[in-house]
Amino acid sequence: MKLDKHSSIPLYAQLRELIVERIQDGEYKQGDRIPSEMQLCKELDLSRPTVRQAISELVSDGILEIHKGRGTYVSTEPERLAIPHFNALSFSFLNLNSYDEIELRPVMLVGPESELDEIFGFTGKHPGYWLAQWPIYYDHQIHGWCSSYIPVSIFPDLGQSISSGKRMVDIKSNKYAFLPTKGSINIIARPARNREAKMLEIPRRSFILVAEGPLFARNGSICEVIRTALRPELIRLEIN
Amino acid sequence: MKLDKHSSIPLYAQLRELIVERIQDGEYKQGDRIPSEMQLCKELDLSRPTVRQAISELVSDGILEIHKGRGTYVSTEPERLAIPHFNALSFSFLNLNSYDEIELRPVMLVGPESELDEIFGFTGKHPGYWLAQWPIYYDHQIHGWCSSYIPVSIFPDLGQSISSGKRMVDIKSNKYAFLPTKGSINIIARPARNREAKMLEIPRRSFILVAEGPLFARNGSICEVIRTALRPELIRLEIN
Repeated sequence: MKLDKHSSIPLYAQLRELIVERIQDGEYKQGDRIPSEMQLCKELDLSRPTVRQAISELVSDGILEIHKGRGTYVSTEPERLAIPHFNALSFSFLNLNSYDEIELRPVMLVGPESELDEIFGFTGKHPGYWLAQWPIYYDHQIHGWCSSYIPVSIFPDLGQSISSGKRMVDIKSNKYAFLPTKGSINIIARPARNREAKMLEIPRRSFILVAEGPLFARNGSICEVIRTALRPELIRLEIN
Repeated sequence: MKLDKHSSIPLYAQLRELIVERIQDGEYKQGDRIPSEMQLCKELDLSRPTVRQAISELVSDGILEIHKGRGTYVSTEPERLAIPHFNALSFSFLNLNSYDEIELRPVMLVGPESELDEIFGFTGKHPGYWLAQWPIYYDHQIHGWCSSYIPVSIFPDLGQSISSGKRMVDIKSNKYAFLPTKGSINIIARPARNREAKMLEIPRRSFILVAEGPLFARNGSICEVIRTALRPELIRLEIN
């Protein structure tokens, strides 16, 4: 990109785009100091107010940062929490070897619910679902919230077993055929529902990443439905 | 959720949340008409202005829609384009059997570029990359934009071959060892870069979904780097 002094686009706007391009092309790297106003004036034959205007817009956009007395720097993106080898079972509750590794909230019984019933293929009356929930914390900050729905008809005592501290290996011991072996989940971005916004500590209706869908047991039936809400700017899903 | 007339939260705000909950619980379904103002007044023992205030806020939030003369309806979410069996090779160029299936833009030669060089592990001088780009169109609307970078050192004639209409099967015929067999890509959500916003026809700095990373050939070397920018509200990645 070259600056065009005869263009109808103001020079400060062209310079703003030029700096953004240089960042995106790696000429100015994250955390690096960019050339001073004087140097940019000289290099590009621009006036000081033009350069100042471009930089001040990029600062208010969060793309550049002024460190007092030291210069102007390219902002660093927040470090993201990687979810390595992400797959359909990554956020499963039943797939855990132990729930000591997560901050499990008290497991709740939730009544038959049309959206879930439809996924599970339940049409008549049934005893409802166990809802297991736990946050994804990293660096003292909430990054996501896992919810897992497990039919009471398949795991009648799950809630009691967990509140009495039964180990996961014992809970699963005679349920081999009903544990998840694969899944079919969707990754979507959508506005947070109110409860999700509260749990993730973000403003109402902010965009979130959601991984949701059914997990299938060896016998082909759906044994678990997951819905994981993720803070989109803090997470990286690694797919191999 | 129950309404609490003694709460410090105004009744219209409580009702707004109650309606959102009923939608989320599937009691009011997408595209369904919700009860009339009169019916809600009666059911919940509320005044008409309270009900009207709650509904008008939900309409301006896009959660409800008023169809003149017919009533108030739950808004339907836009249909999403599913990317079935999404995996690291889903947006690969070299993995295509034919480029007739995509709206390929003219393939460009792009110079050595630090961000890419780092991924490929190129340190010295090298002849650059072929950049293959194509949009993801669905229902006459742009849903995403695929970019694929392929080293000229591995595919010296790719640009010429494509502009002369050589078939993909012939381009790949003696390159068996250099075709992608697996990859390691990241899915992240981040603000669109200016070029991405233009290509996706969305406002500057809107959030987008990005799938990016290296693809590996049989011989272990990186043969392609993909960067796919997706409109987050229009796409659903299916992971099996």
